[in-house]
Amino acid sequence: MRQAALLRSDKGLGTPGTDRKKVKPAAKAPVETTIPGDDRKDHFVVRNGVRCAGVHLIIDLYEAEGLADIDLIEAALRKCVSEAGATLLHIHLHHFEPNGGVSGVAVLAESHISIHSWPEAGYAALDVFMCGDAKPENCIPVLREAFKPKRIVVGEHLRGQGA
Amino acid sequence: MRQAALLRSDKGLGTPGTDRKKVKPAAKAPVETTIPGDDRKDHFVVRNGVRCAGVHLIIDLYEAEGLADIDLIEAALRKCVSEAGATLLHIHLHHFEPNGGVSGVAVLAESHISIHSWPEAGYAALDVFMCGDAKPENCIPVLREAFKPKRIVVGEHLRGQGA
Repeated sequence: MRQAALLRSDKGLGTPGTDRKKVKPAAKAPVETTIPGDDRKDHFVVRNGVRCAGVHLIIDLYEAEGLADIDLIEAALRKCVSEAGATLLHIHLHHFEPNGGVSGVAVLAESHISIHSWPEAGYAALDVFMCGDAKPENCIPVLREAFKPKRIVVGEHLRGQGA
Repeated sequence: MRQAALLRSDKGLGTPGTDRKKVKPAAKAPVETTIPGDDRKDHFVVRNGVRCAGVHLIIDLYEAEGLADIDLIEAALRKCVSEAGATLLHIHLHHFEPNGGVSGVAVLAESHISIHSWPEAGYAALDVFMCGDAKPENCIPVLREAFKPKRIVVGEHLRGQGA
């Protein structure tokens, strides 16, 4: 796995860092890291008496700040992962021009987190899908602190009921 | 951009292929490709009279087949992208052991598609978030054909209303 990680990154054999490559100004480079670690942790659980594959939160941030700041967004995603007690397998962020919006996904042993931001509208759409012992609701305070939205709307799906 | 693509792949300058690296048997390698192309296409739209950032479909497949087949899953994701008229920026698939489940995300110029499969339960959880001129509903027939689920449940969110 370290070999594979090296092939995708020009960094050393330590903890995989962020591989951010600047391309032309009009097409900012994607940011991505793949982190070794492979035990699946998104097994079916019973949540509020319902057996399901996991909890999927649909989160809208309105009148939010920092939505063009790819470093802030990456840090927020990583903090969401740690606060939720989840395991990061791969993270990829894409910075759009000219509006500065960011699309980011974090693939987890427990499923995923995604963010898509529209800085010009002060709006970001996230979803947080986690199972096992992870606590997706712990991401909400992280997002409040990072992006200071004046309004957050959170929807919840218990995925895979009856599977 | 081609330079950046080369740095992440040991393939040539043609159409980027799938970078699949085998690791140890108990930890199958991630599959990922980053495809050049950077114009954002997930601008706000009016859908059914509602101005929104995009349509987010929450899709559950029950009693489905092929959910441990990473090649089938990758092909289905790519076909979803093309049938929806979307633009693929990055795709990453992760094969879990021992259950054979797959987590996959496709980052699009129009947002993303994700899949998480539990072959032992015949269940897969997907979400398809697209905006602009893309047609996320066109993914449903692709998923039916690929995974032959006996039951599909589709929920819809119009994201970012009022942003």
